[in-house]
Amino acid sequence: MTQRSATDRARSALHLRLLALQRRAIEKNRGVIILIGGNDRLGASELANQLHEWFDARLVRLCAPDVELPEVTQKPFLWPYWNQVPPQGHSLIVVGDWVTRTVIAATQGDLDGESLRKRIKGIKNFEETLADNQIVLCKIWIDTPEKSLRKRLREAKKSDAANWVVSAEDELLTKTKSHELAKQIRSSSSGKGMNWKVVNGSDAKHRDLLAGRSIVQQISIGLRRRQTKVRKSNGRPHGLLESATSTEPLTKKDYNQQMTKLQNRFGRLSRLAAKKGLSTIIALEGVDAAGKGGIIRRLVAKADAAHYQVHPTAAPTADEKARHYLWRFWNKIPAAGHVAIFDRSWYGRVMVERVEGFARTDEWSRAYGEINHFETQLAEAGDIVLKFWINISKEEQLRRFRSREESPHKRHKMTKEDYRNRKNWELNQRAAEDMIARTDTPHAPWHVIPGNDKRHARIMVLKAVCRALSDRLD
Amino acid sequence: MTQRSATDRARSALHLRLLALQRRAIEKNRGVIILIGGNDRLGASELANQLHEWFDARLVRLCAPDVELPEVTQKPFLWPYWNQVPPQGHSLIVVGDWVTRTVIAATQGDLDGESLRKRIKGIKNFEETLADNQIVLCKIWIDTPEKSLRKRLREAKKSDAANWVVSAEDELLTKTKSHELAKQIRSSSSGKGMNWKVVNGSDAKHRDLLAGRSIVQQISIGLRRRQTKVRKSNGRPHGLLESATSTEPLTKKDYNQQMTKLQNRFGRLSRLAAKKGLSTIIALEGVDAAGKGGIIRRLVAKADAAHYQVHPTAAPTADEKARHYLWRFWNKIPAAGHVAIFDRSWYGRVMVERVEGFARTDEWSRAYGEINHFETQLAEAGDIVLKFWINISKEEQLRRFRSREESPHKRHKMTKEDYRNRKNWELNQRAAEDMIARTDTPHAPWHVIPGNDKRHARIMVLKAVCRALSDRLD
Repeated sequence: MTQRSATDRARSALHLRLLALQRRAIEKNRGVIILIGGNDRLGASELANQLHEWFDARLVRLCAPDVELPEVTQKPFLWPYWNQVPPQGHSLIVVGDWVTRTVIAATQGDLDGESLRKRIKGIKNFEETLADNQIVLCKIWIDTPEKSLRKRLREAKKSDAANWVVSAEDELLTKTKSHELAKQIRSSSSGKGMNWKVVNGSDAKHRDLLAGRSIVQQISIGLRRRQTKVRKSNGRPHGLLESATSTEPLTKKDYNQQMTKLQNRFGRLSRLAAKKGLSTIIALEGVDAAGKGGIIRRLVAKADAAHYQVHPTAAPTADEKARHYLWRFWNKIPAAGHVAIFDRSWYGRVMVERVEGFARTDEWSRAYGEINHFETQLAEAGDIVLKFWINISKEEQLRRFRSREESPHKRHKMTKEDYRNRKNWELNQRAAEDMIARTDTPHAPWHVIPGNDKRHARIMVLKAVCRALSDRLD
Repeated sequence: MTQRSATDRARSALHLRLLALQRRAIEKNRGVIILIGGNDRLGASELANQLHEWFDARLVRLCAPDVELPEVTQKPFLWPYWNQVPPQGHSLIVVGDWVTRTVIAATQGDLDGESLRKRIKGIKNFEETLADNQIVLCKIWIDTPEKSLRKRLREAKKSDAANWVVSAEDELLTKTKSHELAKQIRSSSSGKGMNWKVVNGSDAKHRDLLAGRSIVQQISIGLRRRQTKVRKSNGRPHGLLESATSTEPLTKKDYNQQMTKLQNRFGRLSRLAAKKGLSTIIALEGVDAAGKGGIIRRLVAKADAAHYQVHPTAAPTADEKARHYLWRFWNKIPAAGHVAIFDRSWYGRVMVERVEGFARTDEWSRAYGEINHFETQLAEAGDIVLKFWINISKEEQLRRFRSREESPHKRHKMTKEDYRNRKNWELNQRAAEDMIARTDTPHAPWHVIPGNDKRHARIMVLKAVCRALSDRLD
């Protein structure tokens, strides 16, 4: 038997193993992400193509962020990956992964001590979030010895094939400094049991075989392992919200004067933000009839409609349910300079999904951390993140329900759900208190707005939004 | 009774009528698009906000393309509107509509005779497509007399409110030339019964009332009217495809040599296209086992994964079914410089949906025209559009099915559907012939590729793709 036929048989066996694992991932409803990183980007690209060919094409996608596009560079670093998180049963092969891109940036000196530390923390959190949400993460690091790598790059440059355009980044990755940084970043960004498998890339066929076998092993282990860490929630009500519903009412005249001024101010600030590329993400939370819609309408009344988007958040669709719960918010991150306003938000995970039992305890418990990381990513990309809890009393809600029922203009807002939800009032308040306590961070603080007086609530929200924008723009 | 209270009562009645119409639109599964155009963009923005407030917020969205964003300007003119086409029962309010933007461009001289004619034709086709697909289109044109418009702009400029930033476009719209052009473009771009209602914008309250009433009327009429134009399909088989399945087979050696050269060439061309911002859209069609997947894998083998996306087209999801069938393709239009490859495509409307009866005769019959307009939009935006029918014989398909069943590496590709679909072979061939005959246009021609010899088919497709790119790049 010749050497060649032995390799062919090994590749054929590997191909079958990968197809079988894909079927297993479907049975188990698990997504799979395969990172192909390393110092040899040409080799990574070849391996990714080979893997793509081995997999069942209906169940695999390739993710390779084009870092030349402004719509990519202007968004948070992890956005292109979040955007393509695979649905259950599907796989994603990533080239141009988050660690390789970080190694390049660090070697170039674009990330210094503090920003590198933040980046690494962000990556670690992201990988843990994926694992916690039953996504199997496989990591292959192609490490081609400097000498043979330089030789390949020289050949690629000479050849007419133009198979690979050798860039400054490729040259950078051959450097010893980069090699050292890669080792550090790989180990410091990996959580427990999520280590990179380093594969020597000198010989292409051998590389693909070794990498493929490691992928089979990593997926097999990952599919057997279920993340079920349950972090205890303290669950006690803080009494924080009970008293914070009322304020001195505003007279209509005062209200109108202040409102006009604030609307004009937000109009001016949002235009300036659009010009300067400063993006803003606003989340409004509160019980039914808290007045969220009315606040949003007034906020945007004098803004240019081209600069903001309002996203009402309802129950997730089938497409959305098949993915990580944050996916549908990641893909609504605003374009550079725009304002995205969420009427209810990602906090549904720790509010309605907790209260109604749509998420298990371990799922909603770990969501606090996941949400904090999500908002950290946004803030570190330079975006403004604002969160409002519009706080009304149980009596005030009932009064508003009654008044809605009596008004032909508002009757359509009432559903049977509304009264049913009132039965969970205490559970809901507790969930809100936990949420505020556990996700109130310096870069994305909660604003608790007393809401029984609608006018007052609107003015307070508009003031807070204008202040946040003018702090960054004026 | 004072004047003021009469106006208030009228507004209240209008509000109720609009809410009632929204409910009716849901019952009838009809989407609604409301265009607010005109020479008074400040007024249009105010009216849009007022309408948005009157509607049930859960069922209405605002569409206002930000024409400063590169991700908007680099795509076809109609892309932002297509992207937001409302699902059944929902409404979309558009400011910065396609006609107002065309009037501005024409007044500025950015659109001359021929390009203006093309633009108008594109708009007319788009509006007809919407109407044909049961979307109710309402059109309000705010026409504020020059004197009072100039006065408003002067005030907006002076005021601290910065309620509206007066731009060169606003000034342009006050000109007589623009007024004349607007009249022409409005009338020449409107299909039968889809005319603009011109509303005087001098007085804001009066304007909103008049516009609102016209919208009520237009929606009411639109909801009663069903588009059921049935255009006859000739339906006769052309015999075009039967003979075009075989060619001289290629030897393995010749094939390998040519393939390597073509793959390198596409690698080089696609990198150049990315640099120059030239986008390419490729659609592959053909029966099961025609070899589409294998062609795609070979085409991209040496391209940079950051520059292309492969989109396998399966049955539409619930979200997709609730919208126009072209929506899911419009929102996959590639970013500037990228290649989007569709493994099956929008032609499903006139293939599987026709053959299986998922679309009614009037629906698939008019799809030929709709698809031609879609591709015209892409071509006119400067994109390359390439379409391939991979043509194999019935015997060859059976041979491939058998061989798939015997191969453990390919067995996963077979489903029960595959044999069932073979029963419709003749219907399918007829549909393919009609499709090719009716959508073969100069800017988006069909390439019929004899597919019984896989090697030959792959070489032919790669050659055609490379030729199309190099014609535009070299």
